[in-house]
Amino acid sequence: METTTDLQTQPLRGELFAAACPSRQVLKALTSQWGVLVLCALMTGVHRFSELRNKMEGVSEKMLSQTLKSLENHGFVQRTAHPVIPPHVDYALTPLGHEAAQHVKTLASWIEDKLPDILGQCPAKARE
Amino acid sequence: METTTDLQTQPLRGELFAAACPSRQVLKALTSQWGVLVLCALMTGVHRFSELRNKMEGVSEKMLSQTLKSLENHGFVQRTAHPVIPPHVDYALTPLGHEAAQHVKTLASWIEDKLPDILGQCPAKARE
Repeated sequence: METTTDLQTQPLRGELFAAACPSRQVLKALTSQWGVLVLCALMTGVHRFSELRNKMEGVSEKMLSQTLKSLENHGFVQRTAHPVIPPHVDYALTPLGHEAAQHVKTLASWIEDKLPDILGQCPAKARE
Repeated sequence: METTTDLQTQPLRGELFAAACPSRQVLKALTSQWGVLVLCALMTGVHRFSELRNKMEGVSEKMLSQTLKSLENHGFVQRTAHPVIPPHVDYALTPLGHEAAQHVKTLASWIEDKLPDILGQCPAKARE
């Protein structure tokens, strides 16, 4: 990959404001609604697909599958297929995924804690 | 609003895993790709629409407008129309928006700092 080579010779910081910077794709993967919930769920331990689906109310099979694949492709989630019958696949955070999850979780917990304030200040009704 | 009344009599914490909890809408507003970039940009001070658009490479006028409206509707961004000729509108963080922005910024900075590691560990090529 060109990008990896460039970064090896010239180890740069990402720049989210730049459209072409690959950090944009990482941001998308980490901050989708379902990405945040997968990361928060996996902080509590390894999960099977069906366990995640049950925990994350309202997610479709397709969206959960796409979210997990995107997080796996960015190296945040490890998918393990156990060689047993019937097949058994589970999902866990990688070390990098753990770091990401901690930041995401801080934001998620802030939203949950502040929800009454947020709803109380919502100016939607009062707007001109 | 029903929700506000419920929260006044029974001040609860949000629950992001519950599909019907309004915290889901807050999460969506705060963690869209463009929402994150608007919050990070406004941390540095008041901006006009055109200044935000120039800073956030790749955003369309429509997407920026929707993102600002969503953040404004949730009480994170204050839109001020100055009564001058020609008209002058600018955007700033509310106190709640400042708090949200700090959490979002921590995640954004982590992504930028870790980008070389993230790209280096990306298993997309090596997957079975």
